[in-house]
Amino acid sequence: MSQEAIVLFAHGARDPAWALPARRVAAEVQKLRPEASVSVAFLELMAPSLAEAVDAAAAAGATRLRIVPLFLAQGGHLQRDVPVLLEAARARHPGCRIELAAAVGEDAGVVHAMARYSAGG
Amino acid sequence: MSQEAIVLFAHGARDPAWALPARRVAAEVQKLRPEASVSVAFLELMAPSLAEAVDAAAAAGATRLRIVPLFLAQGGHLQRDVPVLLEAARARHPGCRIELAAAVGEDAGVVHAMARYSAGG
Repeated sequence: MSQEAIVLFAHGARDPAWALPARRVAAEVQKLRPEASVSVAFLELMAPSLAEAVDAAAAAGATRLRIVPLFLAQGGHLQRDVPVLLEAARARHPGCRIELAAAVGEDAGVVHAMARYSAGG
Repeated sequence: MSQEAIVLFAHGARDPAWALPARRVAAEVQKLRPEASVSVAFLELMAPSLAEAVDAAAAAGATRLRIVPLFLAQGGHLQRDVPVLLEAARARHPGCRIELAAAVGEDAGVVHAMARYSAGG
């Protein structure tokens, strides 16, 4: 049986409140995909790390894992650091198909929503 | 006559392509608000800086200026660095009402769009 996990990958910050928007996104994704295991992971300053989140999803039985970067664009972190993390995670979990989505800011729907908000009242 | 400027404020990165989503947002905002002057500014690694963009908008006659952070959440940059920049900009341009919006990731519409994208197909 195929079991899907979705890991939302955010930058992280010192202030715990920084993670709230990412957690709101996770809660909405969970409603849209009730059968999937949805979690949030961080590049730095917050836990769990991406590797920890992937390991937890695989340990819980995920056979497909979608990593979605909650970033505006594919900066140095996503271009350099994440492929290395990804390759290592794939080697640890050969039974789990792990794919990396483009950054949320690359999505036309997200661009549109940011524009509507930015245009103001 | 009141003249409005909207400055989209993004982090910046070394790769020029990083700025493309921010520029797509700016193009959509310009369509939604054809009467406003819309520009993009960066915290680091890319030009113009926020101060430069604010100065340019004020020099072009803006009397109201809305700064919209294209960030997932209010991290250290927005909590510490931007208020200092803002105070200095207000002092330089007393004839321009400058306001700072919450980060785009705080907007329910943006959260919803990120969730839809993250949930995948």
